[in-house]
Amino acid sequence: MSDEFDFIAALRRIAGSPAARDLLDDAAVLDVGGNAIVVTHDMLVESVHFLPGDPPEDVAWKLLAVNLSDLAAKGARPLGVLLGYSLAEDPAWQSRFVAGLESGLHGFGIALFGGDTVSAPKGAPRSLGLTAIGLGSAHVPSRTGAAEGDFLWVTGSIGDAAAGLAIARGAAGPASLLERYRTPAPRLEAGQRLAALVGAMMDVSDGLLIDAGRIAAASHVAIDVDLEHLPLSDAYRGHAGEDREARLAAATGGDDYELLFTAPHDRAAAILRLSEELGLAMTRIGRVGPGSGLRLFDAGEQVPLPVRLGYEHDA
Amino acid sequence: MSDEFDFIAALRRIAGSPAARDLLDDAAVLDVGGNAIVVTHDMLVESVHFLPGDPPEDVAWKLLAVNLSDLAAKGARPLGVLLGYSLAEDPAWQSRFVAGLESGLHGFGIALFGGDTVSAPKGAPRSLGLTAIGLGSAHVPSRTGAAEGDFLWVTGSIGDAAAGLAIARGAAGPASLLERYRTPAPRLEAGQRLAALVGAMMDVSDGLLIDAGRIAAASHVAIDVDLEHLPLSDAYRGHAGEDREARLAAATGGDDYELLFTAPHDRAAAILRLSEELGLAMTRIGRVGPGSGLRLFDAGEQVPLPVRLGYEHDA
Repeated sequence: MSDEFDFIAALRRIAGSPAARDLLDDAAVLDVGGNAIVVTHDMLVESVHFLPGDPPEDVAWKLLAVNLSDLAAKGARPLGVLLGYSLAEDPAWQSRFVAGLESGLHGFGIALFGGDTVSAPKGAPRSLGLTAIGLGSAHVPSRTGAAEGDFLWVTGSIGDAAAGLAIARGAAGPASLLERYRTPAPRLEAGQRLAALVGAMMDVSDGLLIDAGRIAAASHVAIDVDLEHLPLSDAYRGHAGEDREARLAAATGGDDYELLFTAPHDRAAAILRLSEELGLAMTRIGRVGPGSGLRLFDAGEQVPLPVRLGYEHDA
Repeated sequence: MSDEFDFIAALRRIAGSPAARDLLDDAAVLDVGGNAIVVTHDMLVESVHFLPGDPPEDVAWKLLAVNLSDLAAKGARPLGVLLGYSLAEDPAWQSRFVAGLESGLHGFGIALFGGDTVSAPKGAPRSLGLTAIGLGSAHVPSRTGAAEGDFLWVTGSIGDAAAGLAIARGAAGPASLLERYRTPAPRLEAGQRLAALVGAMMDVSDGLLIDAGRIAAASHVAIDVDLEHLPLSDAYRGHAGEDREARLAAATGGDDYELLFTAPHDRAAAILRLSEELGLAMTRIGRVGPGSGLRLFDAGEQVPLPVRLGYEHDA
């Protein structure tokens, strides 16, 4: 961690632009003639972010999805992407990747604007980069907007993807969890509709607890999370149970690509109406208070934070 | 080549957006509320685009420069960049890279907007990606704008970087050529000023002849290049001479990051005035005619095209 931590700290020192938001946000936001251009760049590296045996179509989908999830967190409408691709002398893998990319582009209704294709040295792991560009609305949420008294909410269900990763690595378990790991659904429409309602918003990529801690730190507030309110899917309950251990695993697992957000009390009804309209669960899982840091509760009782709150591999 | 060729052809089929310009241009151009947002993404891979022994500061500079050169070709003013960086457990290399990046950002007056940092598997070559975002003017040139009767022009001098690459690999030669390979200067101001004067414009990255052929193909015209008018630096002449062989090496060497453009006859005086004002050579090296393809002349005599017109490693 310290290597990456030092590197990112050094980048933060040189960023020097309000658009960069100190590199503490999911995406950069540029004001161009009154339009909010939202830009993000995320990479997937073989054996780090995906497994050599993952279907190439799904790798393409995931590369799109993780970037579009950052746009969703900004309430932005995606316009298109640029692809950075290193060739690995495997035409069959490549054509399946292109097929997955095409189906993803169509599915999300966006364009491939360009990018770069390079030949990687023989035996190098695949390294894929994607830049996604979107258009924000008048109110572009960030991680800094949480205010004392807000509720903490999350969309969808948490923990499925982490369980799916274990299944991809050989554990027994249902295909629906594997699918949530390989082909996550960025919450684009929810993000656009929530933008005007939320205080802070981000997507859950590294783990719900670590990401909630990031909102707390960026907003200079404390956040309490109620483990017993964590939304678990039926598939997850059936696979991992729903005791405290199962809930902690879900809250620290990462790769969920759900939206984590705070909102004032008086927005709760509007959020629940939106949830119903979109057919997407939005669940109150905690609250924002004075102070700093993260506290964890289970059935009203405070419980110690786990040592590992999530992954720290991404910046 | 066929592997990469097929892959890019497949991407081209799925691109499906006017902004992508069929992936045949240096950068994508998006119209956002009447503003031309210009976006490009280029990668540098260790042992492919730079040498393991190259100074990390220079690698950072070059990563910026090759992307900003694409913006220059569009006459765009750069706003900022997103970095995709894979860590390679080498803190000394990293901090020198950050120092070079910082000096480049300051030098070009642009911001680091964000990006992604990932841990690469042990032993993997460094794979660096950069997305540059700029703002175009009312007239954004492309490769398709060359018209019969235009002159063909190029900025600066050609061939220095290719000679510098040989020096980086161990050949004897002057430091000034090595420097042009390692720290190219994107022609940003020239590009912005030329945008309103040119027909077609692009930057010379893969070799002057292959890139002139790309303008010819995109514009559906023929282009004649006069070898004897190729602008060679004093350092290049001293190092490689100026006979036909030396000129062919310069015209096919690549990595020049000069601007290659066409313009109607009646713009010649304005171009030469601009050249004088900027202190940057702009040299007439050929002309655009009816038909298709590339023809090469030396002292008025047509000479056969070399088998290799440049590098085809980039898309």
